[in-house]
Amino acid sequence: CQAAAQKLSGGIGSKLCGLQMMRGNIFPPSHSFKSWNINHKMSPLLMFCFPSSDLLPAMDGDTKTMTFLQEVVDILLAYIVESFDRETKVIDFHYPNELLQMNNWELQDEPASLDDILISCRATLKYAIKTAHPRYFNQLSTGLDMVGLAADWLTSTANTNMFTYEVAPVFVLLEYVSLKKMREIIGWPDGRGDGIFSPGGAISNMYAMLLARFKMFPEVKEKGMSSVPRLVAFTSEHSHFSIKKGAAALGIGTESVICIKADESGKMIPADLERRILEAKQKGFVPFFVSATAGTTVYGAFDPLIAISDICKKYNIWMHVDGAWGGSLLMSRRHRWKLDGVERANSVTWNPHKMMSVPLQCSALLVREEGLMQNCNQMHACYLFQQDKHYDLSYDTGDKALQCGRHVDIFKLWLMWRAKGTIGFEAQIDKCLELSEYLYNKIKDREGYEMVFDGKPQHTNVCFWYLPPGIRYMEDKEEKKKHLHKVAPVIKARMMEYGTTMVSYQPQGDKVNFFRMVISNPAATFQDIDFLIEEIERLGQDL
Amino acid sequence: CQAAAQKLSGGIGSKLCGLQMMRGNIFPPSHSFKSWNINHKMSPLLMFCFPSSDLLPAMDGDTKTMTFLQEVVDILLAYIVESFDRETKVIDFHYPNELLQMNNWELQDEPASLDDILISCRATLKYAIKTAHPRYFNQLSTGLDMVGLAADWLTSTANTNMFTYEVAPVFVLLEYVSLKKMREIIGWPDGRGDGIFSPGGAISNMYAMLLARFKMFPEVKEKGMSSVPRLVAFTSEHSHFSIKKGAAALGIGTESVICIKADESGKMIPADLERRILEAKQKGFVPFFVSATAGTTVYGAFDPLIAISDICKKYNIWMHVDGAWGGSLLMSRRHRWKLDGVERANSVTWNPHKMMSVPLQCSALLVREEGLMQNCNQMHACYLFQQDKHYDLSYDTGDKALQCGRHVDIFKLWLMWRAKGTIGFEAQIDKCLELSEYLYNKIKDREGYEMVFDGKPQHTNVCFWYLPPGIRYMEDKEEKKKHLHKVAPVIKARMMEYGTTMVSYQPQGDKVNFFRMVISNPAATFQDIDFLIEEIERLGQDL
Repeated sequence: CQAAAQKLSGGIGSKLCGLQMMRGNIFPPSHSFKSWNINHKMSPLLMFCFPSSDLLPAMDGDTKTMTFLQEVVDILLAYIVESFDRETKVIDFHYPNELLQMNNWELQDEPASLDDILISCRATLKYAIKTAHPRYFNQLSTGLDMVGLAADWLTSTANTNMFTYEVAPVFVLLEYVSLKKMREIIGWPDGRGDGIFSPGGAISNMYAMLLARFKMFPEVKEKGMSSVPRLVAFTSEHSHFSIKKGAAALGIGTESVICIKADESGKMIPADLERRILEAKQKGFVPFFVSATAGTTVYGAFDPLIAISDICKKYNIWMHVDGAWGGSLLMSRRHRWKLDGVERANSVTWNPHKMMSVPLQCSALLVREEGLMQNCNQMHACYLFQQDKHYDLSYDTGDKALQCGRHVDIFKLWLMWRAKGTIGFEAQIDKCLELSEYLYNKIKDREGYEMVFDGKPQHTNVCFWYLPPGIRYMEDKEEKKKHLHKVAPVIKARMMEYGTTMVSYQPQGDKVNFFRMVISNPAATFQDIDFLIEEIERLGQDL
Repeated sequence: CQAAAQKLSGGIGSKLCGLQMMRGNIFPPSHSFKSWNINHKMSPLLMFCFPSSDLLPAMDGDTKTMTFLQEVVDILLAYIVESFDRETKVIDFHYPNELLQMNNWELQDEPASLDDILISCRATLKYAIKTAHPRYFNQLSTGLDMVGLAADWLTSTANTNMFTYEVAPVFVLLEYVSLKKMREIIGWPDGRGDGIFSPGGAISNMYAMLLARFKMFPEVKEKGMSSVPRLVAFTSEHSHFSIKKGAAALGIGTESVICIKADESGKMIPADLERRILEAKQKGFVPFFVSATAGTTVYGAFDPLIAISDICKKYNIWMHVDGAWGGSLLMSRRHRWKLDGVERANSVTWNPHKMMSVPLQCSALLVREEGLMQNCNQMHACYLFQQDKHYDLSYDTGDKALQCGRHVDIFKLWLMWRAKGTIGFEAQIDKCLELSEYLYNKIKDREGYEMVFDGKPQHTNVCFWYLPPGIRYMEDKEEKKKHLHKVAPVIKARMMEYGTTMVSYQPQGDKVNFFRMVISNPAATFQDIDFLIEEIERLGQDL
């Protein structure tokens, strides 16, 4: 046991690898971090020198089980507290090949002791991203909510499946209650309609496309795409790639997804949508689906939903709103106007795991028409959805899903909602938007910064270039662009190697790599925004 | 606070509702159970009269956070220990309308105190199924593994996403290691190939169909189904409904899924497969996909993979093996012969969350050809899969998924594998098969029982009718069948209302309702099988 416990305790230096050359010697490690000790809170070693087969359901396994699980919880609690501490790193980064060698990750024929299991837990956390860290901004889903986490632990413990009321009575009811509440917030009368929690926004969007096709051509379910005319879908050029991915999977084909022009700030141009619809109809194609985006991934733009819904109504096309990222603004009285018109949509994707910080995964598809999902997807499997059960079968919702088994994603949303109230979510969302406005105001006229598009961002996305001194005054525009393209990747790599913060970057169209800052992390403060700016400048000054 | 705490403490009688009539008075409550007290281990009430906004990331939120999470953990630990106790109910069943009224499940504008949150946690568990209970046999996924649970708690705490190495370095490596190991076990040379963990077997099967179509007609990705001839897929009449569901979603259509006859024990008849392939070809259709089942849902039958693979090879058709349920038998030296020929498949679905008791969800699709998934599904989203990152991009596996964000399902499998070793899984699987053989031997000649098919079951599925004394000697065969059809639903309803055990039933083809007992629960013993039989007889004696 002791040998095993020692395996990972050696200090692991942060190698600078590929970037060492570029960096030169001008970067003293200016931040000193608390080190996450892999042996942190290690219990007396001999305690866990027994195998997992001693745990429940083993005879008299109660005590050992409680002791083992409590030890894991102690590790987790320490990790949580540390994650929120700005004096710890966001990430202890290592290259894949290094990381592969840092632990024995291989699977063996023989069992390990529980001591080894605890060491593995610690090692896994040591090299994980601290997604709760106040300076973690890398994705649309950041932060860690304590009530949400508690709810997820409970969900794991309940370890059940959403397909029937029989095996998930409470969770099925909570899904019912929560979907209804979300539909009320969208603005559908009395919260009527349908919906489902799915494994992420991409699948939610795919559901919407599937429903739109079925609504127009119900025979497609039995007869397939060869029974229907050429269908075409429309979405903005700034929309999420899942629309195309869905079209590829559903047998519609990516070429039948027509990308509508967006304006400078990333919003779909309705006139271009109408033009392309007419063009498609002239070719004999059948427009069946428009996906408007409420909160694009990069710019955070909100498509003009009212104008789009007028066009959809005129041409009798299913209107979907992909609000995976921006849907949560419906909970804010100050910001929900950005989604005006959403109540006219036929379906809405809304991911509470993004802006509302519900632990991953938690994505909802809301549908205006009742019964359509069931008709579209049901297969009447008699071994699961028996029709002669002793309770109200309308609660056996599994047959409307594409999945058979379905993970319980509802409890964490429901419990957080209960803990915060709608006003708590509102305050959390408003605060993130305030922080992003603060960032925008801070850098829009600051030397060395250029905004990617003009005007105040609508969501928390702030898109900007940082021009290091060495590039700032270059006269050759092409040369400048070429250099600038390399800046964000290098700064990002340095952020990760220092472990100070994480923020995303990407090119877009003909625009070279720029930073896309997004704020969904409830732990972030004005000081963290200040830190981010200082850090970008510190890490980019020699470029 | 105290008022809130009292809300749920009133005794809740078990109403017998619709079944009261049928039951008469002959059933004294012969089992007395320990009652799960909703106020169980309630801390001094005033302790948690603060809102969730006092928790981290609030200033000085450490102590309150630790206290709150520890309280939740105490509730969970008590629930776990109780779940394994045969003196507690499997379920405290209530009808949906009753359950809706038993708690205030509605979502409010205002926040609740953490005391209320703890009460909600207790209420949720009180009415949940105890899926860890040794007498819970209702689904293919039963039982609760303690190391798997610990791993799931850690996964929730890490709260990240599988799309890139950047945000899930360890989990991405563990997925890599585990998929390789699973491919080795399938028998592909050096474990080469590809794969992904997906949100359940239905989606894994859909992936397989998608890949088969893309392999034969890569243009379908861009041009859709209208660019290809009429495709047809084949699967046995006993296969899982997800094959048809997938075909409906992918635009292939359910009518293009040709159901192949199965023999008496539920295995696909290869001669019928070949006949139907030839028939389809004569009609000008293109056979592109055969899904053989390794472990059917109801009978637990294993299709003859070698014979099927010969046919697939002869006609150049993608061979998929749906081993969602039976794939785990590959880990057993005693039982893996049932999957002989699996190494010839192009793809295999294998759900460790079923027979291996990994907490839900954990489903893998394994693919023999490398690179195909990436080509089939990638959309090159530049904001997620930047090509100028500082590490080896082959670890950014997200673009081969249908999903964008993807839940971390790997850690619980990996940690359990480490804790048990391959031999530990093998022992667990072998034990479940032994128990089912015990059940089969016990009832095959017992008075009042009839087996649904002859011979020893291949998996842990034991399918049987129980004929209560009142039906046993009926002479009118039609009348007898009609009565028998109603027996299993009534016994099942009584099981749930008494909370003693849970087992599934269904009709199949022209066979009236029968019990399908399955054993995947590592907590089950020979005595629990004895109990099940006694309980069926007790609950059915008056029918």
